[in-house]
Amino acid sequence: MIIADARAVYSPEGPFKLTMIERRDLEPHDVLIEIKYAGVCHSDIHTARGDWGSVNYPLVPGHEIAGIVIRVGSEVTKFAVGDRVGVGCMVDSCGECANCHKGEEQYCLNGMTGTYAAIDRYGQYTQGGYSTHIVVTEDFVVRIPDSIELDVAAPLLCAGITTYSPLRHWEAAPGKRIAVVGLGGLGHMAVKLAHAMGAEVTVLSQTLKKKEDGLQLGADHYYATSDPETFKQLAGSFDLIVNTVSAKIDISAYLSLLATDGTLVNVGAPAEPLSVNVFSLIMDRRSFAGSMIGGIRETQEMLDFCAEHSITPEIEVINANQIDEAWERVLASDVRYRFVIDISTMGNA
Amino acid sequence: MIIADARAVYSPEGPFKLTMIERRDLEPHDVLIEIKYAGVCHSDIHTARGDWGSVNYPLVPGHEIAGIVIRVGSEVTKFAVGDRVGVGCMVDSCGECANCHKGEEQYCLNGMTGTYAAIDRYGQYTQGGYSTHIVVTEDFVVRIPDSIELDVAAPLLCAGITTYSPLRHWEAAPGKRIAVVGLGGLGHMAVKLAHAMGAEVTVLSQTLKKKEDGLQLGADHYYATSDPETFKQLAGSFDLIVNTVSAKIDISAYLSLLATDGTLVNVGAPAEPLSVNVFSLIMDRRSFAGSMIGGIRETQEMLDFCAEHSITPEIEVINANQIDEAWERVLASDVRYRFVIDISTMGNA
Repeated sequence: MIIADARAVYSPEGPFKLTMIERRDLEPHDVLIEIKYAGVCHSDIHTARGDWGSVNYPLVPGHEIAGIVIRVGSEVTKFAVGDRVGVGCMVDSCGECANCHKGEEQYCLNGMTGTYAAIDRYGQYTQGGYSTHIVVTEDFVVRIPDSIELDVAAPLLCAGITTYSPLRHWEAAPGKRIAVVGLGGLGHMAVKLAHAMGAEVTVLSQTLKKKEDGLQLGADHYYATSDPETFKQLAGSFDLIVNTVSAKIDISAYLSLLATDGTLVNVGAPAEPLSVNVFSLIMDRRSFAGSMIGGIRETQEMLDFCAEHSITPEIEVINANQIDEAWERVLASDVRYRFVIDISTMGNA
Repeated sequence: MIIADARAVYSPEGPFKLTMIERRDLEPHDVLIEIKYAGVCHSDIHTARGDWGSVNYPLVPGHEIAGIVIRVGSEVTKFAVGDRVGVGCMVDSCGECANCHKGEEQYCLNGMTGTYAAIDRYGQYTQGGYSTHIVVTEDFVVRIPDSIELDVAAPLLCAGITTYSPLRHWEAAPGKRIAVVGLGGLGHMAVKLAHAMGAEVTVLSQTLKKKEDGLQLGADHYYATSDPETFKQLAGSFDLIVNTVSAKIDISAYLSLLATDGTLVNVGAPAEPLSVNVFSLIMDRRSFAGSMIGGIRETQEMLDFCAEHSITPEIEVINANQIDEAWERVLASDVRYRFVIDISTMGNA
C-alpha cells in the first residue's frame, strides 16, 4: 500500500483539510507518479459541491496532473522511472468497446473511470491530483514534452485537451472563423490553440475587461456580449463557436451568430438545461453540440502540438493552503487564467 | 395580369373563402403553371394562424404544388408548355450569395422568397398553391418524373424534400441506424426515404396505433414513446434521429438515444423553445441540429430518386371545400398521411 498526502473536502461546503490517502500497490501495468503540480478546474468545484450529483466524501479533486514516474509495474513498457508525465480527467476505461478501440476512451461505452469521484475496476473510489502521489495504469498516462515545464503542463491535461479536441473535430484551420465564448481557463486555451491552428479567432466575453489579454493570447477580434450590438453585428459570422461558459447563457442568441452549417459546441456543462429556439437551428442548418475532453492518443497529440507551437497556459501557482481561496476566486472569475497547486507544499501546516 | 381562383383565409381563425388573386404577367424567365394538386402542410396552418409571427391577410397558403406548364416567358429554356412540374416552399432567392451559388437557395444569405406570405422581388406579397395558377421563375420550378402522378407528387415538394435533404446531409445509408420521430406527413416520407437509402429505420411514435402502417412503409422497428422502457432500451442506439414533430417534446430524452457522434435533426419548428440538457450533448459528442427543406437541385434529385425507387406519399385527396375540415384533422393528427387538394374543385360553390 502506498500512502499519499492529500487535500480533501469533507462536505459540499469544504474547507480543504490535509489528510492521507491510500494508493493501490502497483499492478503489472501501473506506474506510480510523484505529482509535482495539479491544476484547479471549475469541474473540481462543480463535483465537490454536488452540482452534478451527489458524491462521496472525503473527496480529493484534481484532474490536471503533472509529475514524475518514480516506480513502474513489472510489465510496464511505455514509461520508465524519471519520465515526465501527465494524467488528465480519466484513469481507465473498458478497453474493449468500439469507442475505446477508436481511441476515444472518454466516450467508453461501458463508462470511463474518472480521475476522482469514480469507482475503478478494483472497486476503489478514485481520488484525484490534489495529492502527492497517484497510481495509474500506463495506458492512461501521457508523456510531457521536455520543452513544457511541469507547472504549465498540468492545465493542458484538462483545459488543453477539452478545447483542442473539438477544435480538431470541427476542423479549425486557416479560413475558418471561430468564436470562443468566455475567456477563462478553457477559453484562453481555446484562443491559443485555434490561433495556432490558423483560424481567425474572435473572443466573445461579457465585457471588454480582458480585451488586451485576449488579443495578446492570439485573438483577432474581441467583442462584449453585454452589448446587444455585438449580436447584430456578428449575426451569421462563425463556422464554429466554442462555448466554454458552464453557466446558463442565452444559447439561441449565440446560435444566431453561426453561419450556414455552423456548429456551436459546448465544452462546459451548466447544471440547468438551456433553452433553444429551434428556428435558430433550422434556418441555417446549424448544430448545437457537446464535446468532452479527448482520448488518450489525442491528449498526447495535443501535448506535442503545444510543444511544437510553444503553447502553454497562463497560470498562477498557489500553495496547498490557498486552495479554498482559489476556488472562491475561480467562482468569481478572478483568475488569469488557471490556478496550479505546487504539490511540494502539500504537507505545509 | 393573370387572375387565378384561390382559397384564402382572412384572419388567424379562418375559415377559407373562395377569392380571386392576381398573378404577375410573365417576365422573360417566368412560367405560368396550371395547378392540379396542392398538398396541405402543417406549416400552412402555423403560418396562417400566426404561430410563427404575424402575417398579412388575405393569405393563400400552399407550398406543395404540382401542375402543368401552360405558358412560358420569352427567355425560358428549361420548360415548355405541357411539362409536368412542381413548386415547393420557395419561389425565388438572390441567386448571388455563397449559398445560392452552392445550390442551397433555402439558406440564401439575403433571404429566400417563400411561396406564400413573403414579399417577392417585385414588391408583391406572395400567395401559394391553394389556387388555380401560379407564376414562378423557371429556376424555382422542378420537373416531375413521368412515373409519378401529380396528386402524389405534390407532397414531395415539401414533405419529401424536407426529409430527403437531412437524410442525405447526415448520410443515410446501409449500416446507419436512423430513427424517425412522429409518423405524420413528414415522418412517413422520412421512413420511406431512409428505407430506400438502405438504412435501418426505427419509428418512434407516441403510441403503437400506426405500427402496422409504419412497418409497411419500410420501418424495421417501431416503438411507443409513451412507454418509458423505450428510452431505456434504445439509449445510445441511433446515428441519426429525424424529429418531424413540431410540438414541444422532451428533446433531451431523445438526444440520449443517440450513439456517440450522433445527430438529432429537427425538421419541424416548435413555436416555443426546447429545453436541452447539455450533458446529453457532451457525454457522447452528440449534436442537436436543424434542417430546412432543400435546394432546388436537391429537390429535383429527390424527385428523381422517388421515381427510381417508386416512392410516393400516402395521400387523401380532398376538394377545395374541405380544407377547413382537413386542417382540423391535421391538428388532431387524423390524417394518413397527407391531404392533397384537387385544384379542379377550386371554383366549387
